[in-house]
Amino acid sequence: MADNFSKFSVQNEARTELHNALGLTGAEVSVNVLPAGASVPFVHSHKQNEEIYGVIEGEGIAYIDGQSVPIKAGDWLRVAPAAKRRFSAAQNSGIKYICIQAKANSLEEFTAADATIE
Amino acid sequence: MADNFSKFSVQNEARTELHNALGLTGAEVSVNVLPAGASVPFVHSHKQNEEIYGVIEGEGIAYIDGQSVPIKAGDWLRVAPAAKRRFSAAQNSGIKYICIQAKANSLEEFTAADATIE
Repeated sequence: MADNFSKFSVQNEARTELHNALGLTGAEVSVNVLPAGASVPFVHSHKQNEEIYGVIEGEGIAYIDGQSVPIKAGDWLRVAPAAKRRFSAAQNSGIKYICIQAKANSLEEFTAADATIE
Repeated sequence: MADNFSKFSVQNEARTELHNALGLTGAEVSVNVLPAGASVPFVHSHKQNEEIYGVIEGEGIAYIDGQSVPIKAGDWLRVAPAAKRRFSAAQNSGIKYICIQAKANSLEEFTAADATIE
């Protein structure tokens, strides 16, 4: 794996985890697919990581601390570490979504403040 | 914005930055669209942030430290902070991609190690 970049192609798996495939050091990213009517089979929270979810295709429901949040392609969610969450596809639609895990409060600067333009 | 989660719906803009829209603290995420034949108009690198790129639709080329890397929907890249990068759509296809910025080496634990299952 080259020092300056790495590349991985996600196939049509139920779940693909990119941390080891890409040698990530600042975040974990997973790509997840649930068929219509399916749910992640457990509720979970995190110790120190914020999660950022982005819906790529389809629609479903995010259950967060007992609240039902409808989600569809183009929707993004920030979920705080301690929130209890579970994701489901809609009854009549599958869903493809990415989940980013990054340590809460770890980002110090970003975009223009962190960039050098050539 | 609730403490436990926030939600934002990305429209069809050329670039949407989610940090402020979602109140992110562990990463910045942008959703970017380039029409066929278009390029980001500058080369850039980063001071401390790793970038993770995921192609959602279409295809293009990532130029990284002088190397041309063809990319298409489903492809993911890790780009080290110091690498000099520029993204282009293909001549005959637009591209939609997400870019995640997270501080290099900030992730301490992830997935099962960081999770509490209810």
